[in-house]
Amino acid sequence: MKRSEEDLLLEKILKGQPASADLVLGPGDDCAVVRTHGGIGLLKTDCIAEGVHFLRGQDPARVGWKALCRPLSDIAAMGGEPRHALITIFSPPDLAAGYWVDFYKGIRKAARRFGVTIAGGEMSRQPQGIAVSVALTGTVPGGRFVRRSGGRPGDLLFVTGRLGGSISGHHLDFVPRLKEGRWLAGTARVNAMMDLSDGLGSDLPRLAGACGFEVDLASLPLRKGAGIHGALTDGEDYELLVAVPPQRAATLLKKWKTAFPATPLTRIGTLNDTGAAPEHWPGGWDHFSVVSARRLGQRSDGLTPNRRGQRT
Amino acid sequence: MKRSEEDLLLEKILKGQPASADLVLGPGDDCAVVRTHGGIGLLKTDCIAEGVHFLRGQDPARVGWKALCRPLSDIAAMGGEPRHALITIFSPPDLAAGYWVDFYKGIRKAARRFGVTIAGGEMSRQPQGIAVSVALTGTVPGGRFVRRSGGRPGDLLFVTGRLGGSISGHHLDFVPRLKEGRWLAGTARVNAMMDLSDGLGSDLPRLAGACGFEVDLASLPLRKGAGIHGALTDGEDYELLVAVPPQRAATLLKKWKTAFPATPLTRIGTLNDTGAAPEHWPGGWDHFSVVSARRLGQRSDGLTPNRRGQRT
Repeated sequence: MKRSEEDLLLEKILKGQPASADLVLGPGDDCAVVRTHGGIGLLKTDCIAEGVHFLRGQDPARVGWKALCRPLSDIAAMGGEPRHALITIFSPPDLAAGYWVDFYKGIRKAARRFGVTIAGGEMSRQPQGIAVSVALTGTVPGGRFVRRSGGRPGDLLFVTGRLGGSISGHHLDFVPRLKEGRWLAGTARVNAMMDLSDGLGSDLPRLAGACGFEVDLASLPLRKGAGIHGALTDGEDYELLVAVPPQRAATLLKKWKTAFPATPLTRIGTLNDTGAAPEHWPGGWDHFSVVSARRLGQRSDGLTPNRRGQRT
Repeated sequence: MKRSEEDLLLEKILKGQPASADLVLGPGDDCAVVRTHGGIGLLKTDCIAEGVHFLRGQDPARVGWKALCRPLSDIAAMGGEPRHALITIFSPPDLAAGYWVDFYKGIRKAARRFGVTIAGGEMSRQPQGIAVSVALTGTVPGGRFVRRSGGRPGDLLFVTGRLGGSISGHHLDFVPRLKEGRWLAGTARVNAMMDLSDGLGSDLPRLAGACGFEVDLASLPLRKGAGIHGALTDGEDYELLVAVPPQRAATLLKKWKTAFPATPLTRIGTLNDTGAAPEHWPGGWDHFSVVSARRLGQRSDGLTPNRRGQRT
């Protein structure tokens, strides 16, 4: 399957990386999985940058919420539980210090709600623009985590919630699917899981890996105001995409409706053995492609869509 | 003792932070200390920003080395051993992707030398400037870590290596004092330890805390080309500052010379009970003070000194 320029760069960067006995799962999934004294641990870093993931004029508390909830969505995608957070702040000289007081209100609100302990942080000037990185540790109940790569030809593809149109507000206020992720990993034992941050268009090929896939576009669950193209390419859905063996799908759907009656779980397609995406499948966001760079100028709201490159 | 504006901002930001049973040591020391299933763990995040900690034209491999070695210096200051690293990259559109290939050569070189596993990372565009955050996990042999705040009136103050003039190259090529830190925590059982990144001028008051201190300025070990003022305010020394009970000082010095014959360990002063710095003690770097901001323009090399604010 065609790789993005960004994925290729990452491959080049990570080449020659020495193997490590205590690294169960390295770069390439939603989180890294490491062996700890007591079992299995998750590690994740994520980030937001002004003008890419948020604007200066947006409520700093909502931006703080988003900064912590983005990597929480990755912990969710492993079926994990978050533990500690480290917050790294890059602050430009033209920003009032009070910005960070409000920003931390959002961080703390999310930390309380999802049981995260803010263990520490770091603060540095940078000449221009606000940027924040959040690193998280997590655990996996019973050591049972779900890889992105566990799908097999014939598996059915499901997504939680609705897709597209995140820019109208969802991208700042979303609730990471932590409960749903643990349920899908534990009770439902899905074969593969990932969170949708770059949009189904680029994220689904990452989950499919060496498999191919087909998608019934008419089945995509759309956020209010979003169309099919937006559901594929807008990004920032922070929903979970899972692959489920067909014989377990009916039971899973039934149990889901009892466990999460307010949240749709929608069958959108199937993994197959073609090793390819369907024809005209829209590529997603690629930080390092020229085409993507051009797209930066195409939004009227000044905000470039929030997509990320390297996962862990 | 007078607090910096940055320290006051951090206090305000962190106020209202809920306590956590598994957080042994929160923000305010070189690393956070957390309870893990198997014992005690260290967490640390640190960062570098273009124009603050390095320049675009400097060798990316050396910049990568520095990015990883900065938080390693904090692990050293707890008496710890590093384990896993997460690398977060903010990349401007005018930077060739090859920059990161070279940058990672420096990261990997440091990782191999100090036994760090690169567990994962994240990559995002930002409109201007390069910025990198590195988060680390670590362990402490026997669970014996050294706080910054353990010093008592009467303790003697020592520093490793030499101070000042880091800008001429040391700030990109320094070797974090991991072996020395473990020795000082384990064999020497010092009362307090921290790494010097903002310069003795601002870092020593942080170690002294509620104590006061006096320093024999003539005793400061100077890096080649550096003067006393530089040893206090240049920053980026990445040396260790320790407080030692006077009755143990002679034995410690003797054993140090056997263990680390090539590295000086110099007695520079004493903690006392005045609760104050000596008169005319030079304040160090403060990211959020107007005076510091003015200083940004005073360097002819275009590089603002690398000091950081929030530890842990």
